[in-house]
Amino acid sequence: MLKTYKATATKCPEGLKVESNVRGFKLILDEPEEMGGTNTGMNPVEAVLCALGSCQSIVAYSFAEAQNFSFDEFHVELEGDISDDADARKGFQEIRFTMHFKTKESQEKAEAFANFIEKNCPVGDTLANKVKLVRTGVVRD
Amino acid sequence: MLKTYKATATKCPEGLKVESNVRGFKLILDEPEEMGGTNTGMNPVEAVLCALGSCQSIVAYSFAEAQNFSFDEFHVELEGDISDDADARKGFQEIRFTMHFKTKESQEKAEAFANFIEKNCPVGDTLANKVKLVRTGVVRD
Repeated sequence: MLKTYKATATKCPEGLKVESNVRGFKLILDEPEEMGGTNTGMNPVEAVLCALGSCQSIVAYSFAEAQNFSFDEFHVELEGDISDDADARKGFQEIRFTMHFKTKESQEKAEAFANFIEKNCPVGDTLANKVKLVRTGVVRD
Repeated sequence: MLKTYKATATKCPEGLKVESNVRGFKLILDEPEEMGGTNTGMNPVEAVLCALGSCQSIVAYSFAEAQNFSFDEFHVELEGDISDDADARKGFQEIRFTMHFKTKESQEKAEAFANFIEKNCPVGDTLANKVKLVRTGVVRD
């Protein structure tokens, strides 16, 4: 069964600041001053990295017991490259991440569990494979 | 030239809550209670929708003058589908969006500018095309 998630992003009057709303939760994204913004929040590509690391964290915690893996703490360090060359793709060329577990499990088990997380992470799948983007309209209000 | 963006996502002690950090900016993502979370923030796939709409908004505002298009307000409504079927892909199957301009420009010019936004949006390109995800390590702290 398909579940549909929804969001609205609204350009704020100030600089490049954008306020998004999802189920009453707000997210302010912006650009640093050197990019023409007012630096009131992280930027959209940084938010993508956060979404990936958070999704991996949620999968890790949700499936640890069923996968017979235990850990006390988990964090992910992520980084991704974007080129400013005019003929390069506009988005991330590569995203790298290192998973950190505070655990007494073996390295082998930790790596097997990391494989499981990667295979079952919705944001990871969204990024690693193509998503069909469909513009449903351009409305002049 | 490549620019590298960085983030850290850390699982919080409470439920499925995850705190991400980018340049001192925090982002709390979580899941609703029916998904096992404590509903302290939007979830990671919803954050992806916000990142896309925000990136489109920033591109719109940044390039309007150079593209000879003027508008007073801009917002984007976004939605995306994820299947819970065991054999379906884990991530978004499709993301749809409608752009809203408060503008006196013609519909034709608004649609041409929407095309420009789509072609030049880093998050849009990241989602519409594959990104190489590279696990650089599994560290047991």
